[in-house]
Amino acid sequence: MRTAPGSAPDLRLLSFNQMTCNPANLSQAIDASSRAGLKWIGVWRHKIKDASVEQNGKQIHEAGLRVSGLCRGGMFPALTAEERQRRVDDNLRALDEAAALGAGTLVMVCGGIPEGSRDLDGARQMVVDGLSAMAPHAKARGVRIGIEPLHPMYAADRSVVSTLGLANDMADKVGSDQVGVVIDVYHVWWDPNVYREIERSRGRIFGFHVCDWLVPTPDMLMGRGMMGDGVIEIARLRQAVEAQGYDGPMECEIFNQAIWDQPIDDTIARMKQAFLDCC
Amino acid sequence: MRTAPGSAPDLRLLSFNQMTCNPANLSQAIDASSRAGLKWIGVWRHKIKDASVEQNGKQIHEAGLRVSGLCRGGMFPALTAEERQRRVDDNLRALDEAAALGAGTLVMVCGGIPEGSRDLDGARQMVVDGLSAMAPHAKARGVRIGIEPLHPMYAADRSVVSTLGLANDMADKVGSDQVGVVIDVYHVWWDPNVYREIERSRGRIFGFHVCDWLVPTPDMLMGRGMMGDGVIEIARLRQAVEAQGYDGPMECEIFNQAIWDQPIDDTIARMKQAFLDCC
Repeated sequence: MRTAPGSAPDLRLLSFNQMTCNPANLSQAIDASSRAGLKWIGVWRHKIKDASVEQNGKQIHEAGLRVSGLCRGGMFPALTAEERQRRVDDNLRALDEAAALGAGTLVMVCGGIPEGSRDLDGARQMVVDGLSAMAPHAKARGVRIGIEPLHPMYAADRSVVSTLGLANDMADKVGSDQVGVVIDVYHVWWDPNVYREIERSRGRIFGFHVCDWLVPTPDMLMGRGMMGDGVIEIARLRQAVEAQGYDGPMECEIFNQAIWDQPIDDTIARMKQAFLDCC
Repeated sequence: MRTAPGSAPDLRLLSFNQMTCNPANLSQAIDASSRAGLKWIGVWRHKIKDASVEQNGKQIHEAGLRVSGLCRGGMFPALTAEERQRRVDDNLRALDEAAALGAGTLVMVCGGIPEGSRDLDGARQMVVDGLSAMAPHAKARGVRIGIEPLHPMYAADRSVVSTLGLANDMADKVGSDQVGVVIDVYHVWWDPNVYREIERSRGRIFGFHVCDWLVPTPDMLMGRGMMGDGVIEIARLRQAVEAQGYDGPMECEIFNQAIWDQPIDDTIARMKQAFLDCC
């Protein structure tokens, strides 16, 4: 399915995921986003450390920003029941933090195969169990849980949820309005079923992330590119999620040392232009 | 689907893909395979250079070996019709070479998105067109064309055929008995649909390759591991292809500098043991 071309992306929906400039702390990312006139910011949990999460939430709000998503919950699979429970407990705290920040969505990187195991199916079941254990607390806190399928090259060590189809299957199994998907073009662009699965995601798309796939890819983790510098049909994917009713923020999230080394204001300026030109 | 455990792999089916020891030339790979008592060898086209392909075929036969597969045909997508025709022509020559070697299967690495393009669907159509153009000559030569789905991390630059499901779809579209699939565990292990798609491949599985996915993966291209050193459920996959009637050779194909640096006899000895222990 190719939606009609022509509709431009809405700059008011663009969100700066703070890991696009990892050297900056949260205050610096808030200030730079605000200076650039952005309306949204994507926050990472490990960046919340110089103040309480409530203080960070107040700072973001007073800067005229909203939190598009909190990264990241997940990492469910573990060899023992005790360790799995410890991880669920941490995910419940992540929901509290998301609520305190006013983040509508907690982005889930669900975890890989436990060390020493080869049980991929078992790890996938642990993800479903963990998500199910989180759903009631998510409802109580008013936070949505967004399962982010990760590229299959991360299946062993970062997320056993390797396709949007599997994320949709898992959301179906959990069966809660609080549980949906976050779609990052980097992770799904190659999938022959991606447009069909975006249609299936209707009503539960809780986030949309953009960046690009560089050729050649310089690194499995740190090799992402700015929109337009790679081969992903980003506008087509953006139009496909919008065709399913998604009207939320669009986060730019790039792990790339060369981009991290740029001044944050330059990165945000470049991101805005790339969003308008290539998304 | 998990087949009943217990059935052991048959060492008589093990094939040494010569790229598991890239420093060796074809004669050295033939001699080492024969010394180790193997019955099969996997050959690469660019290694055929010190003699004619007929002479190489004779040498392999006289060493008591058969060719499990010739790597590789493919690389169909290109921006111009002339360049696509040039590639089809080269693939027809590859079929001639496979026939001269007595290789039952030409292994297809189908190619990425043409440089300067983002048209993934178009590239996939070029693959179907190229395979269709090859099918009559494959029938005339008695060589089977095996579409090898490659891991999605190679979708941009090596093969737009990213899943076994897509390879099956393409084989259906071409609609020739000569066109089927080659299944390499490295490329498909992560796929939530892999066992379903292996069932769908019944009758057209023209090859099976083994190695392992290391954690962490040291390199996107050169990061493969010996069977047992990673997380792939190799025996389960092997039993799944056998459950669909596959009784052909099983190639060990590993790109890994540390393994390339070992003496070829050591590598083959280690491969045999790993095959028995972990496949």
